[in-house]
Amino acid sequence: MSETPEMGQEERALLDEVRWGGDGLIAAIAQDADDGTVLMVAWMNRAALLETVRSGYAVYWSRSRGRLWRKGEESGHVQQVVSLALDCDGDAVLLKVRQTGGIACHTGRRSCFYRQWDGQIWREMLPVVKDPKEFYR
Amino acid sequence: MSETPEMGQEERALLDEVRWGGDGLIAAIAQDADDGTVLMVAWMNRAALLETVRSGYAVYWSRSRGRLWRKGEESGHVQQVVSLALDCDGDAVLLKVRQTGGIACHTGRRSCFYRQWDGQIWREMLPVVKDPKEFYR
Repeated sequence: MSETPEMGQEERALLDEVRWGGDGLIAAIAQDADDGTVLMVAWMNRAALLETVRSGYAVYWSRSRGRLWRKGEESGHVQQVVSLALDCDGDAVLLKVRQTGGIACHTGRRSCFYRQWDGQIWREMLPVVKDPKEFYR
Repeated sequence: MSETPEMGQEERALLDEVRWGGDGLIAAIAQDADDGTVLMVAWMNRAALLETVRSGYAVYWSRSRGRLWRKGEESGHVQQVVSLALDCDGDAVLLKVRQTGGIACHTGRRSCFYRQWDGQIWREMLPVVKDPKEFYR
């Protein structure tokens, strides 16, 4: 793990309990710490999880860009981590977060899960809080 | 998709909007519809999502067993689906469910996310509601 050469005993314990997939990733769910809204799901590798814990802010692995994705690095919509939980088989984490701007989705909506199946179509249920043009320049 | 030969127009709309991964899977998060607790994350293929919508109960794809997993088929801890949402990039769904028995995890706990990082170890935070020996025979 060339990106994170210096680790203490606790940090090794943090990473060693996780069952990293064949691609070195786990699923990471971000949930609003205050009202429980599920905001998004993304991916983490070892470096992302370590930096998340070290910094106190959510850092993911962007599969499309092939690099660490410090959530909010462009939009300003960072996620302060309140708690971090690991699931029973160790291949998913749940982050309870405080979402800056109240917007987790790149479409400008509060949550990425804004389309709901109504029996006929995936209907858009959440409003655009802010036009993405205003926070992606 | 040999498992599901007969589909109506709505069912095709359901499946076509999803961006299935290279392995034919998407992530599926189950959340308690009443209090917002995130219960588990699992996987779905086309057949699993279709059967979930048709039956009204959560059906996943078990990667370890390589077959459809009708959640609760052994334990009785089925999940009645209240709503189904798709995320912005179409590769994850969020199910709000009513969890029979109040136990989603195979360890007998309410949620699979029962270990919380406390800065030193992944500490078990949720009690075992029922010994799994009582529901796996």
